[in-house]
Amino acid sequence: MNVLQGLRVVEGSAFVAAPLSGMTLAQMGADVIRFDGVGGGIDFHRWPCLADGTSLFWMGMNKGKRSVAVDVRRPEGQEIVTRLIVDPRPDGGILLSNFPARGWLADERLRALRDDLVYVNIIGNPDGSTAVDYTVNPSSGFAYATGPAGGAMPTNHVLPAWDIATGLTATTGLLAAERHRSRTGEGQLVTLSLADVAFAMVANLGYLAQAQVLGESRPPIGNDMYGAFGRDFATKDGRRVMVVAISLKQWEALVDATGIGPQLGAIEQALGVDLRREGDRFAARDALAAFIAPWFATRTFATVTETFDAHGVCWGPYQTFRQLVDEDWRCSPRNPVFTDLEQPGIGVVRTPGSPLHFTALGREQPRGAPRLGEHTVEILADDLGMTSSEIGALHDAGIVASPPS
Amino acid sequence: MNVLQGLRVVEGSAFVAAPLSGMTLAQMGADVIRFDGVGGGIDFHRWPCLADGTSLFWMGMNKGKRSVAVDVRRPEGQEIVTRLIVDPRPDGGILLSNFPARGWLADERLRALRDDLVYVNIIGNPDGSTAVDYTVNPSSGFAYATGPAGGAMPTNHVLPAWDIATGLTATTGLLAAERHRSRTGEGQLVTLSLADVAFAMVANLGYLAQAQVLGESRPPIGNDMYGAFGRDFATKDGRRVMVVAISLKQWEALVDATGIGPQLGAIEQALGVDLRREGDRFAARDALAAFIAPWFATRTFATVTETFDAHGVCWGPYQTFRQLVDEDWRCSPRNPVFTDLEQPGIGVVRTPGSPLHFTALGREQPRGAPRLGEHTVEILADDLGMTSSEIGALHDAGIVASPPS
Repeated sequence: MNVLQGLRVVEGSAFVAAPLSGMTLAQMGADVIRFDGVGGGIDFHRWPCLADGTSLFWMGMNKGKRSVAVDVRRPEGQEIVTRLIVDPRPDGGILLSNFPARGWLADERLRALRDDLVYVNIIGNPDGSTAVDYTVNPSSGFAYATGPAGGAMPTNHVLPAWDIATGLTATTGLLAAERHRSRTGEGQLVTLSLADVAFAMVANLGYLAQAQVLGESRPPIGNDMYGAFGRDFATKDGRRVMVVAISLKQWEALVDATGIGPQLGAIEQALGVDLRREGDRFAARDALAAFIAPWFATRTFATVTETFDAHGVCWGPYQTFRQLVDEDWRCSPRNPVFTDLEQPGIGVVRTPGSPLHFTALGREQPRGAPRLGEHTVEILADDLGMTSSEIGALHDAGIVASPPS
Repeated sequence: MNVLQGLRVVEGSAFVAAPLSGMTLAQMGADVIRFDGVGGGIDFHRWPCLADGTSLFWMGMNKGKRSVAVDVRRPEGQEIVTRLIVDPRPDGGILLSNFPARGWLADERLRALRDDLVYVNIIGNPDGSTAVDYTVNPSSGFAYATGPAGGAMPTNHVLPAWDIATGLTATTGLLAAERHRSRTGEGQLVTLSLADVAFAMVANLGYLAQAQVLGESRPPIGNDMYGAFGRDFATKDGRRVMVVAISLKQWEALVDATGIGPQLGAIEQALGVDLRREGDRFAARDALAAFIAPWFATRTFATVTETFDAHGVCWGPYQTFRQLVDEDWRCSPRNPVFTDLEQPGIGVVRTPGSPLHFTALGREQPRGAPRLGEHTVEILADDLGMTSSEIGALHDAGIVASPPS
């Protein structure tokens, strides 16, 4: 039993935000049916891929869902998906999509068939024009705040962070709208713009007000933390680590571990700062780093690890993706969030379940992604009550597809 | 009326993830009571700040909440907050926190007072040890995939993306657990680790499998898009723009707009690629950029804007935070998500509401943040039924505080 057991969501999606939103629900136990075209949608071969075009991305974004492959360019295909969307079960009637809400996916058309439909539609710009994470991020201001200090060239972050925030926000909206429906009987269209999520977040973090009220655009400061002491250092054996001291306790742990206590008075005097203050530690960060760097440069990563953990320093190692999967216990089957799972056509894959632990219900067992169309037959038969000859005819006509057996 | 009207959440929090989680709920209409120490918690002066220490960050993260200031180091203060947490109203009994779930905030202590409590607790590492966005991000692999191509130095992204993902995931978990409670009567502790959210997302995006199955750590490629054609260009007048062509339609729009069609055959022949393929456009990106760059270099930003919009090119301008607030209509009161609001002690601030539009209920009117302790008296009187002399005594003893009137 998982926490959203019984909830039934139809997902029409591509790329990151909407698939992630649906997967978040699936990993909490919802029955999420993703529909794709016969042969897969626009993201079916999204990178990273194997040499044969099998997408590791698609596999990652669709774990725990059921897959139905239907040609929705044809009326018969649209009819099948429509019936799934407006299915009358009380916990059904939920559509999650980043496709344009028009034509056969228009809200009014679907709502005429089930008036308490919960329909979450993710759009790009608030006026409905196209925007993707890659075009919104440059406009957010963050690219000019990321990268080396003094740099004039913008640096995109590579993580599709706005897509992620949008997908998760969509999930909160879907659950809130479903809650409202269960209490009032009222369904609704819920729209969410990627650009709105991004720019609202810039405001939420205070950077918009900093620009508006103070006239300042926060500049890039490399890997330094903003407003407190934190930065990266190189160890004797060529590893890099990030060290953070936000609270006074964290600062004292760092001072103890690195033995720089005796030097602090000189820094305070020279720069006129009080290093017990968070903002003053930020102001004095270059001087502090100059005193701390030699400590790292004369110690191996193993020694740094041991010393920092003994002192309770807040820190983390820099790792490549390979180091993360090969060396970090948090990303290994020692952590119940991860398991090694055989994924058909790919091999053994380190696979996460939901990071949420619902302690009364136990952890979700991590599940893999379906093959494209893996549940086509099951869904047509069990959910739509079709006979095997009807299902056979749909296959023959190329309106639906199942994987080669 | 807003979608979560009636839901009552007590929030004990600092920094990004938990405050953002609570604000997401508040902006959907929940009554979110954030408790802080008298004088404010550890994030009350988090940067960016005004010269007097007023935090634009704190203001951004606490919009739409009620604020109660209580000294929870003292038993009388703990008792007040405990009563708010375990309040018997059916839609109450929800605690959201990133404080350690021990001592007076231990799950078993609170659950003994209300056994259907929904308690969402955000932790750092999955074993409960300290981790923050700044230490998890370097370990995620993304720092070695961000920044200039060929760069060996890791580049942190500045956006606290893991905190954001964790806060929003916490909100999904809270709503799911509340749904479960409303159907079964069962409450529970829900735990969520920041590191788990981050590393599960690395896997969700396919990068963990790429490392594990293919032995590859995705390298940094500057501002280039991965697996398709997309990158930044400079205009004649010194602006930079990001151009993206994922779908064939987007690619054709870009080719039309920039007039590079006649050159494509030569590129295809020279490099042995088929530019109708997404992955081949990525492989040929430097050659393509070499042909496209002169088009930008000879046109002003205004001309680029006009031409691209006429052709339906998928693109976005690079902007600083100031340009975002000064020049972008999506971040202006022309967009109903934003309004200009007088925030006491700060001035007029461009303020977003929820990016979610629940169309049956209308948009949330953007609200500002409370002053610290603004609702102390109201909460003690209305929610806990205290008399004004009891409330006065608590103020006199310094157990609670209200803002200067």
